[in-house]
Amino acid sequence: MKLGLVGLGKMGLNMRERLRDRGLQAIGYDPNSADSDADSLEALVESLPAPRAVWVMVPAGAPTRQVIGQLSRLLAPGDVVVDGGNSRFTDDTLNSEILAEHGICYLDCGVSGGVWGRENGYALMAGGDAADIDRLMPVFDALRPDGAREDSFVHVGPVGAGHYAKMVHNGIEYGLMQAYAEGYELLAAEESIVDVPAVLRAWSKGTVVRSWLLDLLVQALSDDPQLAAISGYTEDSGEGRWTVEEAIAHAVPAPVISAALFARFASRQDDSPAMKAVSALRNQFGGHAVRSAASSGIA
Amino acid sequence: MKLGLVGLGKMGLNMRERLRDRGLQAIGYDPNSADSDADSLEALVESLPAPRAVWVMVPAGAPTRQVIGQLSRLLAPGDVVVDGGNSRFTDDTLNSEILAEHGICYLDCGVSGGVWGRENGYALMAGGDAADIDRLMPVFDALRPDGAREDSFVHVGPVGAGHYAKMVHNGIEYGLMQAYAEGYELLAAEESIVDVPAVLRAWSKGTVVRSWLLDLLVQALSDDPQLAAISGYTEDSGEGRWTVEEAIAHAVPAPVISAALFARFASRQDDSPAMKAVSALRNQFGGHAVRSAASSGIA
Amino acid sequence: MKLGLVGLGKMGLNMRERLRDRGLQAIGYDPNSADSDADSLEALVESLPAPRAVWVMVPAGAPTRQVIGQLSRLLAPGDVVVDGGNSRFTDDTLNSEILAEHGICYLDCGVSGGVWGRENGYALMAGGDAADIDRLMPVFDALRPDGAREDSFVHVGPVGAGHYAKMVHNGIEYGLMQAYAEGYELLAAEESIVDVPAVLRAWSKGTVVRSWLLDLLVQALSDDPQLAAISGYTEDSGEGRWTVEEAIAHAVPAPVISAALFARFASRQDDSPAMKAVSALRNQFGGHAVRSAASSGIA
Amino acid sequence: MKLGLVGLGKMGLNMRERLRDRGLQAIGYDPNSADSDADSLEALVESLPAPRAVWVMVPAGAPTRQVIGQLSRLLAPGDVVVDGGNSRFTDDTLNSEILAEHGICYLDCGVSGGVWGRENGYALMAGGDAADIDRLMPVFDALRPDGAREDSFVHVGPVGAGHYAKMVHNGIEYGLMQAYAEGYELLAAEESIVDVPAVLRAWSKGTVVRSWLLDLLVQALSDDPQLAAISGYTEDSGEGRWTVEEAIAHAVPAPVISAALFARFASRQDDSPAMKAVSALRNQFGGHAVRSAASSGIA
Repeated sequence: MKLGLVGLGKMGLNMRERLRDRGLQAIGYDPNSADSDADSLEALVESLPAPRAVWVMVPAGAPTRQVIGQLSRLLAPGDVVVDGGNSRFTDDTLNSEILAEHGICYLDCGVSGGVWGRENGYALMAGGDAADIDRLMPVFDALRPDGAREDSFVHVGPVGAGHYAKMVHNGIEYGLMQAYAEGYELLAAEESIVDVPAVLRAWSKGTVVRSWLLDLLVQALSDDPQLAAISGYTEDSGEGRWTVEEAIAHAVPAPVISAALFARFASRQDDSPAMKAVSALRNQFGGHAVRSAASSGIA
Repeated sequence: MKLGLVGLGKMGLNMRERLRDRGLQAIGYDPNSADSDADSLEALVESLPAPRAVWVMVPAGAPTRQVIGQLSRLLAPGDVVVDGGNSRFTDDTLNSEILAEHGICYLDCGVSGGVWGRENGYALMAGGDAADIDRLMPVFDALRPDGAREDSFVHVGPVGAGHYAKMVHNGIEYGLMQAYAEGYELLAAEESIVDVPAVLRAWSKGTVVRSWLLDLLVQALSDDPQLAAISGYTEDSGEGRWTVEEAIAHAVPAPVISAALFARFASRQDDSPAMKAVSALRNQFGGHAVRSAASSGIA
Repeated sequence: MKLGLVGLGKMGLNMRERLRDRGLQAIGYDPNSADSDADSLEALVESLPAPRAVWVMVPAGAPTRQVIGQLSRLLAPGDVVVDGGNSRFTDDTLNSEILAEHGICYLDCGVSGGVWGRENGYALMAGGDAADIDRLMPVFDALRPDGAREDSFVHVGPVGAGHYAKMVHNGIEYGLMQAYAEGYELLAAEESIVDVPAVLRAWSKGTVVRSWLLDLLVQALSDDPQLAAISGYTEDSGEGRWTVEEAIAHAVPAPVISAALFARFASRQDDSPAMKAVSALRNQFGGHAVRSAASSGIA
Repeated sequence: MKLGLVGLGKMGLNMRERLRDRGLQAIGYDPNSADSDADSLEALVESLPAPRAVWVMVPAGAPTRQVIGQLSRLLAPGDVVVDGGNSRFTDDTLNSEILAEHGICYLDCGVSGGVWGRENGYALMAGGDAADIDRLMPVFDALRPDGAREDSFVHVGPVGAGHYAKMVHNGIEYGLMQAYAEGYELLAAEESIVDVPAVLRAWSKGTVVRSWLLDLLVQALSDDPQLAAISGYTEDSGEGRWTVEEAIAHAVPAPVISAALFARFASRQDDSPAMKAVSALRNQFGGHAVRSAASSGIA
């Protein structure tokens, strides 16, 4: 099988290599990458045998929409496009409709595994028609870890369902990371704990909390035992927000995932307007001293 | 009625003045205040007619315990001591027992009203025996706002119950302030809102959210429309912590009060160890850029 | 001034009466109300002198959109429509555009005050052009409480800003109510508290937590001291959800408002799927007993 | 090495078997178990060669304190006692002092692994003197999983530090479980997701959220795909409460762990007093319908 791969960032490049390692032909295209196999999207499309299969692995939002639009003009009826990026599931309906006008099939596929995926394999959550899923199965099988297919691949449902499952996966990820992080901070705050990294490492095997994320935290602490080189300023890439929005839409309580999301927002504030208001209120009713803004840098 | 008043800080001094305005004799003692009416605790006690009533208004914890200990040696059987400070309710049992060994009665009394109490009156939540409550009623009536006694005074229950009610009052206060503060921050973040202080002021009358705290926030914003001079660094004085601890002890869900408490903790951190851990994890699995600690000052 | 008023539910009917009490002519129309002054929307429009002013007070969403659509066909250039319902601020842009195609002006106005507004007056948060605001000022002045206009009326910003401010107001309201509710539950759980309603009543005057909502809780407990007749099943009307969504959109931490929202979601669940999963996990790793679903009714 | 083991519940019995499998002599005593190897605690002690080592594996609190008290009278100077139960770390100081009066050494050891520990091995977090730790190392090595000692055993610090680390471990566990549970509920609420268990299973390998807890959830759903037989009523065993209390004591924000704890509290309420109060308030100000308590059963 020969697959076109649009986008050769951290994820796309690793996926191309894994596909090749597994004996598939993967032709990559990225206008901003020296690793590009094609000079243009047109050239990529022309290099593929019909019916073509093109996997899009570019940033969610405008970049993905742009590539989908271009592909809708370049591909032919019966071809199939897979969006493997972290798109919001609501984008999939639009993408699917744009392509369907040209008779082009569409799959969405949530991909998890990060930079370790090339070696370990990627977990895949796909949405779309079963026939299209079947056509791509050699690709899915090459990308996913060895072992039972059911342990790392799922056809979640119709178009959009794959990204929906990936969104929830990432929402859970926010909660898991925050849980470990709170525990880490508490261990670090307790003076009787001599060696926090050693405690976390001792949880690696046998405990209820053992996980890949824990292994990664142990690794990070092995490199920098006090995380002294790392700021707490933490970005979010959208999936956590969408998960909370979906929880609201379904009236599902999500106190943990939302708390994890809000902790990231707070981590990016130099000073909190809300806490200024609380501090101002305390001063108003109780005459409690407020810290002047000027001095906050030395707090 | 003649009352001894130990502690002439912001609260004690105002209370002495209000008592005097209302025609009661209040003899204040504070070793660190130029406003002290007595040179020593002994002198204060000697100046009072038996059976004596002494109101303690000093910081919770060690300072209050110390004064209670001294009073246990200076007072006589049948005298009564009131702890009007923000003591944890669990201290009241100890205080009561120490004094009971000398035949001295004990009341605890939560006092709310802040620096405005001298003019508006203080709300009072008392714990102890009904007979002792009755003896102090002229003091309670002078301290509380005018109007129906039931609107600003309550005999909550046995010793400790007054401080318990005050603790819960303050826990609620944390939640209320944080709710206004989150709304304030959202208004301030929304570019279509021209004048945030004007919006809050327009809620002063007629809305469901009108309250004294809202009035104070309007006042604070009137003084400093962007709270530019105030840091978000926010102390907590213990009552919020105790409220969450009691919620845990009673298996009562307290997501709002605890969130308000944790927001204060977070406001005092220059950088969050937990968020360093989250950031480190994101870097480990996704190769997401971390912000180096050195650059966090310009975040 | 003569005002057309579409929608005579709880809010609309009370507003008509208040406007009339204040000397304004208010012509109400509601196809489902015996109190309707007009037989049709057409008749209402014809009864008004040009340039006309029509206040829409119907449920948010489809009902409001439908009325706006009808008015766009019935009104004339220079007329003005006010949406006083609890619409999402994003609806205002659409409404405004539909009417602008016919030269009709549009204002949005958040209204707070509930069933007590007829007597106390309503707080008003308006969005739109200043000239349109000025035209409606006699109506705003009649609806709002007596006293300084700035205490109960604000021109928040362009179209949509009024509903935005009302949305945040309601989000805060969620947080405030939940804070009182958590405190109430903790007081009720503490055996040393003899009379919970008496404690809350004693906070009515003088305390930091005094508010109109507290007064209402005291009233509710006066009617039913243990709230025995009321279920905890609590609806939400949308504004809390939108507030959290906007907090997410602006990266504003909103732990308290979101916790209050999620508590409502949880209150409506007979059994929580999430907690079934937690219970199943505990059983898997620890052999902890799970409660079978059949017995949950007697939990 | 010969070890006395007091308590043959789920954990103790499995540990005895694992120790024996690994070639250690483990003499168990449990007055309520048919598997007891000794007829009395005295008999157990007599069967051990001096200096003796006794591992206590009984429920935390009074049962553990009682056994420690008995052992303090039965053992001899130089013997060592290990509390391997889920005791609060503050109990360790007391236990240590009681035993020290008799010259008996004391270790605390947090044990994780649940019912799977017999086969997989237990993770161990020990507190106490290094010399005592060394004496017990053959026992620790037999109990823990194979592989590097550092991956499943840690000498955390002085007496109490082992249980402290175990407490934090369990607090994290609460947060992790709740994160998965919220994600599970959201997947189950989304109609486009055909087969929720299949989605979770596909996360088993390759994803960022893969973990032992996820494996257990997949197992639970394999047995009962809709968790139909399990109630959401979820107990808590104390460690989550202590973790939040310690977070408060150290001013460490713990929004996720506390949210997970409160979700358990809420899961055990037939109806929520707090939500009754919110519902009553909505009725008071808005005339919103309340659901009568009588009908809540069919909500």
